[in-house]
Amino acid sequence: MSEILDTICALSTPHGVSAISVIRLSGNEAIAIVNLSFSKEIINEKGYTVHYGSILKNDKIIDDVIVTIFRNPHSFTGEDSIEIACHGSLYIQQQIIELMLHNGARMALAGEFSKRAFFNGKFDLSQTEAIADLIHSESEVAHQIAMQQMKGGISNELSELRQKMMNFASLIELELDFSEEDVEFADRTELITLIDEVQNVVENLAQSFQLGNAIKNGVNTAIVGRPNAGKSTLLNTLLSEERAIVSSIAGTTRDNIEEVLTIDGIDFRFIDTAGLRNTTDEIEKIGVKKALEQVEKSSVYIYLFDMGELSVEEVESDLKELPSTIKRLVVANKSDVVSESIQLEFNNSKLDLIFISAKEEDSILLLKERLVELIDTENLSQQTTIITNLRHYEALNKANEDLKKVQEGLETGVTGDFLAMDIRQAMHHLGTITGEVSTDDLLGNIFANFCIGK
Amino acid sequence: MSEILDTICALSTPHGVSAISVIRLSGNEAIAIVNLSFSKEIINEKGYTVHYGSILKNDKIIDDVIVTIFRNPHSFTGEDSIEIACHGSLYIQQQIIELMLHNGARMALAGEFSKRAFFNGKFDLSQTEAIADLIHSESEVAHQIAMQQMKGGISNELSELRQKMMNFASLIELELDFSEEDVEFADRTELITLIDEVQNVVENLAQSFQLGNAIKNGVNTAIVGRPNAGKSTLLNTLLSEERAIVSSIAGTTRDNIEEVLTIDGIDFRFIDTAGLRNTTDEIEKIGVKKALEQVEKSSVYIYLFDMGELSVEEVESDLKELPSTIKRLVVANKSDVVSESIQLEFNNSKLDLIFISAKEEDSILLLKERLVELIDTENLSQQTTIITNLRHYEALNKANEDLKKVQEGLETGVTGDFLAMDIRQAMHHLGTITGEVSTDDLLGNIFANFCIGK
Repeated sequence: MSEILDTICALSTPHGVSAISVIRLSGNEAIAIVNLSFSKEIINEKGYTVHYGSILKNDKIIDDVIVTIFRNPHSFTGEDSIEIACHGSLYIQQQIIELMLHNGARMALAGEFSKRAFFNGKFDLSQTEAIADLIHSESEVAHQIAMQQMKGGISNELSELRQKMMNFASLIELELDFSEEDVEFADRTELITLIDEVQNVVENLAQSFQLGNAIKNGVNTAIVGRPNAGKSTLLNTLLSEERAIVSSIAGTTRDNIEEVLTIDGIDFRFIDTAGLRNTTDEIEKIGVKKALEQVEKSSVYIYLFDMGELSVEEVESDLKELPSTIKRLVVANKSDVVSESIQLEFNNSKLDLIFISAKEEDSILLLKERLVELIDTENLSQQTTIITNLRHYEALNKANEDLKKVQEGLETGVTGDFLAMDIRQAMHHLGTITGEVSTDDLLGNIFANFCIGK
Repeated sequence: MSEILDTICALSTPHGVSAISVIRLSGNEAIAIVNLSFSKEIINEKGYTVHYGSILKNDKIIDDVIVTIFRNPHSFTGEDSIEIACHGSLYIQQQIIELMLHNGARMALAGEFSKRAFFNGKFDLSQTEAIADLIHSESEVAHQIAMQQMKGGISNELSELRQKMMNFASLIELELDFSEEDVEFADRTELITLIDEVQNVVENLAQSFQLGNAIKNGVNTAIVGRPNAGKSTLLNTLLSEERAIVSSIAGTTRDNIEEVLTIDGIDFRFIDTAGLRNTTDEIEKIGVKKALEQVEKSSVYIYLFDMGELSVEEVESDLKELPSTIKRLVVANKSDVVSESIQLEFNNSKLDLIFISAKEEDSILLLKERLVELIDTENLSQQTTIITNLRHYEALNKANEDLKKVQEGLETGVTGDFLAMDIRQAMHHLGTITGEVSTDDLLGNIFANFCIGK
């Protein structure tokens, strides 16, 4: 890979004015390139050393900086690398980067530092992807999964299986060489057990994607109900607590917090169905097309009604209009102001209700618990590997199809060459996850989604 | 200053998602506080060492990070300090900062790191202010002045003078103790010379503020002229070249570049006087009130006219309507399409004209040169100290008033106690610039304008 031996350079901290910015260089000439413009000789300094000095351009000081040297292979990329911590000024950032380009570096492409780390065997592909997930993770659980994946979670699950499959495929292929003698090196019963085992793992991983995706991207949660059921009040009550928590830590408030509520580390993204209010008589009930569409797009939804306004029958009728394939909570609002007889009527109905009132904090807590229960979080507590990446999910599904072909082949007794082909194909798909199998296109697509400087 | 011995903590890179974020701690317990949550023992590590490890919370990995240790006094603040370079994730930033607060640090106030550097004698006040200027400087010249000031430019100019004044004031005060004997320890001729010298320096510094302010904040430049004189075309021509230069460096484009043109390191901020176009007949000429107001607010302005449309007399008449106290350029547009006789008429007029045409690049270059000449940049090339800070400017003016009183006192022969008082007063005002004299209020005001994390 001679193309990756040149030295790349990028701003690795966010673009903006601040106390400190970090400019990173990586490549064979990284240290020499900085040395050309640094006030001290650092060309022979060891890795993991820090040097205070000035970046100079035509004898003028651009900035006083701290440079940190990392030596191949003990760096993020596995190459010689150097980080320049300068003052967080746009002008200084620009000047230093220009100087480094002038000295022989080139601007790094998006994700190019990570790509080099991958090529140099510092991380496999799924781990590299986990770094990007880690950076973008906004909740405890998303962070935890990304961290586990960065530490090799998926790789570990898959590598052993792949090794076993490889052994079997080789044995089957060996049989082909001796095909005239009709021997079976590969024990078919063992093979059946192995394929079942692999398929079991692959299916479990693929199934974890629904949860993983919800955790990574948030759970789209619609709140629906008739006008004045109290949707906005509920949303505000839910969010206001969260806002208080978030705003107590200065400088950490996230963008668009308004509509995202994190419960037990899972982000619930609430979808505004306020459009329900401006309905014409004809579609009054709750069957407003727009709101229904939003419900259908959501992963879970909350149906909210005012206990003082609707009867059990009306609620049941509303629920019939709403999709039953999507997990939902049926929430009875204003439970604190209705008469005992109404309360009794709903208690005795077959509806699985959550009774709330904005004034009772406990009722909101229960609602939150039930919301989390809608997401199958059992896997989480067991610390198993959870798939959060669509690419991995698709690769697992493809591998699963191949494994089914192997199972069918074993049942119908197809010849070894077909079995071997399907096993190899399944291995290929599993290999794309960790990058043992990769194409330029695939890598290009993956790293193009990274930040520059990563 | 026992209050500043606690350990402060802040995000020092811009808020946002990126490859790297840096969290900084400073104070006696800084290293111990990080050590509590770090996977390796770093409590006894030396300054200027780098350590790769994990930040842990209840045995869970929050992130793999690089920490850099700085030991008192060899740090920015002069205290023990430590920087944690983590992945640029909002969640991770928040988690690590929370952990550090839990371990005993507190959130740093705006500018608190710099304030500690000031209290620990790492920088004087004007140098500390220069760091903030350095971070916000957007042009070469602004950067250069901030850098010179950070290196002690103003401090050096003032400290010697202050020392001499201190000596004289002491001698005069000594005379007071011997007042019955009518002796003069302080040679009045020498004192006159000294005060003249000091006043000269102070006045020069104060005068440099006009340039300094223009450099720091940009030069407000109005372009005026009758409708269809070509104002927008001129602006576009000026800016389009600059845009091309700026956009050639990825990731370095400044905000609002649209209306700012940097020539020879000075930012010219062009003020839109497009309102001129929608004029009623009554105020047709060019005397539109709104445009005039904008011209009056600007530091310099360009009057532009179409040579094919206006006569010499009409131009002279326009110019009479415009303020003559503000420096200006008179620019004749479309010089390439007018007849020779018109060209001759203007050439022979008393007007100091710049002839331009959008097609001729040279004419635009000349315009730029003349624009820079409007700003008194002579001082710049001489590398003298330039005042860019309004607070310094005001202190210099106050000191200057006191010096004038001393001069008057010397002329009218006032008694030593009055002289000494005025000298001390002048010294006081000069001392506020470098912080030798400071109040909590003053410091509070200064540092409140810094970023958090600086």
